[in-house]
Amino acid sequence: MITVLSGGTGTPKLLQGLKEVVNPADLTIIVNTLENDFFSGVYVSADIDTVLYTMSDMINDELWYGVKNDTFITHDRLEELGCAELLRIGDIDRATKIQKTQLMEKYGLAKACEIQAEKMGIQSKIIPMSEENSDIKIMTDIGELEFHDFLIKHRGEPDVLDIKFSKVKPSKGIIDAIKNSEAVIIGPSNPITSILPILSLDGVKEALNETYVVAVSPIIGSGAVSGPASKFMKALNIEVSSVGVAKLYENFLDNIVIDDKDFDKKSQLNQIVNKVTITNTIMNNSCVKKNLAQIIIDSIP
Amino acid sequence: MITVLSGGTGTPKLLQGLKEVVNPADLTIIVNTLENDFFSGVYVSADIDTVLYTMSDMINDELWYGVKNDTFITHDRLEELGCAELLRIGDIDRATKIQKTQLMEKYGLAKACEIQAEKMGIQSKIIPMSEENSDIKIMTDIGELEFHDFLIKHRGEPDVLDIKFSKVKPSKGIIDAIKNSEAVIIGPSNPITSILPILSLDGVKEALNETYVVAVSPIIGSGAVSGPASKFMKALNIEVSSVGVAKLYENFLDNIVIDDKDFDKKSQLNQIVNKVTITNTIMNNSCVKKNLAQIIIDSIP
Repeated sequence: MITVLSGGTGTPKLLQGLKEVVNPADLTIIVNTLENDFFSGVYVSADIDTVLYTMSDMINDELWYGVKNDTFITHDRLEELGCAELLRIGDIDRATKIQKTQLMEKYGLAKACEIQAEKMGIQSKIIPMSEENSDIKIMTDIGELEFHDFLIKHRGEPDVLDIKFSKVKPSKGIIDAIKNSEAVIIGPSNPITSILPILSLDGVKEALNETYVVAVSPIIGSGAVSGPASKFMKALNIEVSSVGVAKLYENFLDNIVIDDKDFDKKSQLNQIVNKVTITNTIMNNSCVKKNLAQIIIDSIP
Repeated sequence: MITVLSGGTGTPKLLQGLKEVVNPADLTIIVNTLENDFFSGVYVSADIDTVLYTMSDMINDELWYGVKNDTFITHDRLEELGCAELLRIGDIDRATKIQKTQLMEKYGLAKACEIQAEKMGIQSKIIPMSEENSDIKIMTDIGELEFHDFLIKHRGEPDVLDIKFSKVKPSKGIIDAIKNSEAVIIGPSNPITSILPILSLDGVKEALNETYVVAVSPIIGSGAVSGPASKFMKALNIEVSSVGVAKLYENFLDNIVIDDKDFDKKSQLNQIVNKVTITNTIMNNSCVKKNLAQIIIDSIP
């Protein structure tokens, strides 16, 4: 069993590769649930749905959000009615969210995801990091902001001074999943808003200490491949580089995978982590994804 | 101002005629809200939506439910996911329901309907009979049943012994609307499950007493044009005929409109109600609808 810690964009790209080189039934994916919330009467767990769609080959992998070739009939009509949705929810995607909401009310989020994964023909185990709602507050030079307000309303522009998560309980089974895995892969998701929330759950760091952990750096050179990771890392006084990422995961990290462009960081990284793997990590086609996945799997002792 | 009391099938047919012969801005439609409830995370007020769609020329007037030429992408996907919806909600229709649910949470159902009517370009006033949820229990030979259980699960087959509504408060403004109208039209909806819930609201019968009231009988001969009206009337010991309908409305009725086929009931009806209007009431095309509406309007003194 391999366990993957995932957010919503970088790691799903890697999952597309992993499911080609590993039996999907041998994968457990623990997914970030930060900022899950109700929109338009349905529960939106964006990262979980992205992972569900990725593993069932339905993902819109231009946006890494929603279903490929989905229609937007209800969404567009809501806009006509003067009731535009904050999130762009497609018609097929909405069915996922309606079902999840109903299942969740009955069985909780973890069981809801399990049932949905099965219905979508997914053999991997997909576990939300927590069944509780959690949010993140961004302390900025213009005051404390909600995550979406910071990202969308203020276009990520304010200076970030600090970041606070709400404390939630881990889902049942994730500690055991980590402990019982041959290896845990920390995907190339935003270290602060996607990975740190998982790492902050009671027992996760201790469990990672007992397991072989390989992380793929989402930072190449001094910038993130996508999203606001750089700004958030700076705010927490973390160097924006693969070195900063390695330091963040230092206590339990056994192997860091960095991009070819970062080969000059190897000696510095070797002082932090036992093994440094250098390869192409820019997953802009299925070959790179599969190749990167294979290299990661091969690196597991 | 003309006020119409409406359920979800017979009266909307008449509304299609009325809006051709009266300035729609001079119409107030008070709509049954019995059995409104949440389905798939959205509030479903079936009769209100049918009236909204009728007045905005969007109605699926084969089913008298939902939007003409709507698609069912979300609905069909929910079925694929093993989470079939009890109600068949189309993609455009779902937007109406999502918006209504959001507006309702903010402003209450009456204001929500007002906003939606305006967004749909409707000039008439559409008022839910109540802002409270209400239901109906059917006492049958096989026990007490919920309305939908009786109609759908048991296909309306059990013998009906009695019928009980929950008591709710009238929406603000409906008593004044009735009192200030030149006339109130009781549409040809099910007298028991569509009209009686409106008549049972505090103050409605008294207000009708002060106004000219014309009712269109939904019963021709000894059967209803559609639906389970006959069975319900029998259970309440009401004769299943236009005479039974007239007796039900007797205390405030000034004019009953009956079908040509019922001309032999005229003398009997004349003992119950001042005026009896005989015409074609089978609204199977737009000419009949418009003609019936014109005859009703012309009959108002």
